[in-house]
Amino acid sequence: MIYLDANATTPMLPEVYEAMVPWLRDRFCNPNASYAGAREARDAIESAREQVAALIEASTEELVFTGGGTESTNMALKWLARLVGRKSGTVVTSEIEHSAVLKPIETFEKVGYEVVRVPVDAGGRLDEEAYRAACEKAAEGGGFVSLMWVNNETGVIQPVEDAAAVAREHGLAFHTDAIQAVGKVPVEVGGLDIDFLSLSGHKFHGPKGVGALYVRRGCRFEPMVRGGGQEGDRRSGTENVAAIVGLGKAAELALKDQKEAMQRVAALRDGFESALVERVQGVTVNGDLIHRVPTTSHLSFDRCEAAGLLVLLDERGVACSAGSACMTGKQKPSHVQKAMGFSDDKAKSSLRFGFSKLTTQSDCDAGVEAVVSAVERLRRVQGGGTGPVTVYSP
Amino acid sequence: MIYLDANATTPMLPEVYEAMVPWLRDRFCNPNASYAGAREARDAIESAREQVAALIEASTEELVFTGGGTESTNMALKWLARLVGRKSGTVVTSEIEHSAVLKPIETFEKVGYEVVRVPVDAGGRLDEEAYRAACEKAAEGGGFVSLMWVNNETGVIQPVEDAAAVAREHGLAFHTDAIQAVGKVPVEVGGLDIDFLSLSGHKFHGPKGVGALYVRRGCRFEPMVRGGGQEGDRRSGTENVAAIVGLGKAAELALKDQKEAMQRVAALRDGFESALVERVQGVTVNGDLIHRVPTTSHLSFDRCEAAGLLVLLDERGVACSAGSACMTGKQKPSHVQKAMGFSDDKAKSSLRFGFSKLTTQSDCDAGVEAVVSAVERLRRVQGGGTGPVTVYSP
Repeated sequence: MIYLDANATTPMLPEVYEAMVPWLRDRFCNPNASYAGAREARDAIESAREQVAALIEASTEELVFTGGGTESTNMALKWLARLVGRKSGTVVTSEIEHSAVLKPIETFEKVGYEVVRVPVDAGGRLDEEAYRAACEKAAEGGGFVSLMWVNNETGVIQPVEDAAAVAREHGLAFHTDAIQAVGKVPVEVGGLDIDFLSLSGHKFHGPKGVGALYVRRGCRFEPMVRGGGQEGDRRSGTENVAAIVGLGKAAELALKDQKEAMQRVAALRDGFESALVERVQGVTVNGDLIHRVPTTSHLSFDRCEAAGLLVLLDERGVACSAGSACMTGKQKPSHVQKAMGFSDDKAKSSLRFGFSKLTTQSDCDAGVEAVVSAVERLRRVQGGGTGPVTVYSP
Repeated sequence: MIYLDANATTPMLPEVYEAMVPWLRDRFCNPNASYAGAREARDAIESAREQVAALIEASTEELVFTGGGTESTNMALKWLARLVGRKSGTVVTSEIEHSAVLKPIETFEKVGYEVVRVPVDAGGRLDEEAYRAACEKAAEGGGFVSLMWVNNETGVIQPVEDAAAVAREHGLAFHTDAIQAVGKVPVEVGGLDIDFLSLSGHKFHGPKGVGALYVRRGCRFEPMVRGGGQEGDRRSGTENVAAIVGLGKAAELALKDQKEAMQRVAALRDGFESALVERVQGVTVNGDLIHRVPTTSHLSFDRCEAAGLLVLLDERGVACSAGSACMTGKQKPSHVQKAMGFSDDKAKSSLRFGFSKLTTQSDCDAGVEAVVSAVERLRRVQGGGTGPVTVYSP
């Protein structure tokens, strides 16, 4: 497999896997018990907490381990909605959020909250003026903000630091979905006005099924899941020790080489894009090219439907996703591309390639060959026009 | 380590671990994508669903994979509370539920629901007459039931089949926390009046961080966690493929040998109890001896405080928990033992031993020796009386 879908998930680093193995095998004790094996498990969890805290410059007591990024985000948003007051208040978000933010917010809207979805420019970056206006409005009746740090489809980095400051200025709590940012760009909450931050292990070479929610010291918080009182009574349930250890190790490794790794990934990604632009007619590189993580390439191919390309690329052993993120069968263009003003045709002819520090030059070379061949084949067969895209890119 | 705390967690069976490894390593794809590796992951999830469905005689579409038993329970209860109607209705439960049931229900009570906690007899088994009366009451204004199948402290089996039928008779939705039952007693929802059932992987030799919620076909259900629409839009978030595969394998193995394994475990447990009763003065075996899973032994030791015993047993390499389940530092006797009418002294002198099909005769023999020696030592040192118990047994 030529894996070019690192925004969907990343393989675990071998060191992460190795760190987990003992906790999957002999060191299986429940960390809530009193004996030696349980104490070891508790210590392992606390070491992992230190590793994750170090990566995002948080304090350990500000971190709650969860079952993943979507859970972290739901926890934060549900609490913020309750804090503002049931069925009132304004939720400020953007048009390009992940469904883990959009869907909970839709439920708030249904029960009476006002939701302002701030638009983005053609490069997929937040309209800061409109954002400020939304915050002013929200400040009147109370509300909160949820804004993603890096978009999952385009890789475009949002002005989260400034947006958090604006929210603070207006007395609004600020959550950021940093799931596509952590491990790729510096995410250092220490000096910022961020109150809640969601992250996910499997997006930066940690395991699936584990994430964390950062809750800034001093912020009130009540849990979504209640029971045995684990995680300082913020997220009950027997801790997934092995996964937490893996997340910690992934954080440690990200901190160690993030800068160098991302420089190398940027070079790979840029080479991939240059080769395609050179060899294929009618390729557009989408998204703000200045504010973009090095791990994402979002490309449109004139007169090629993404659904067809995906089939041909799959045949050629290439894993990537449609830029038009849709649930299977839903066949509508991605809300992100619509927000960026893409025509339906363009949205339906877009692919997302994702790179990571495990991506090799030969993956990229093989990927280029496969894309060149798939595009040629598709254009020969189909002539032109685009059809429905039926593939979900998480 | 002499591991006698199988109610807290169980080691994974080697076959479970081996089944997970590929999904932790090379087969890492996100199941929501469109390419071959993603389809393989989806297929693996669906195979696991078949395995779990077979274990509890459910249909595959009735199963939602979750991040664990506590999450399953919270999902079910929050939905049932919403379904009944905000801030009204009666919740029927028992005095001996796990905190994953008790704590969410406390939050319902705070916002106006009426909660009836049905008492148990001295053996820790539900008072069925009081239960029926509670259902009658709840039927008047609407409500629902949550009743555990097997108690986590005593191992006492509750009359869930009958209780579910009574609930149905009264038009009440019925949830059961079957976390300590699955893999130990036959849990066959097919023919029963159970609407929701929670189970957890790590209680029957599967991995931590994964569980399932059974939602009977035809029951309305809305999710707690929203986002990408995974699990038929009932529980969003990238699936923890490896853990789900592990849960499936654990279910398959439980189904294969549950009856024989539990007979063997019962013999081990009975031998353990007999040896202690014979060799130590003032030992009581607690809980209904007829309706009891073979995996649990709940014992009181006259004139011995459990906290002290646990320290001495830990020194002797034995892992077990206090019968008085408490959060560390809280030092109050377990609500289960109080419900059974134990004096504080008795509650504070109780230990819970947990057995599984991985427990050996030599574990039991060594456990007996250690308990005999610890009790003797403690009685020599302390003379009599019991003190606070500060250990949480999940």
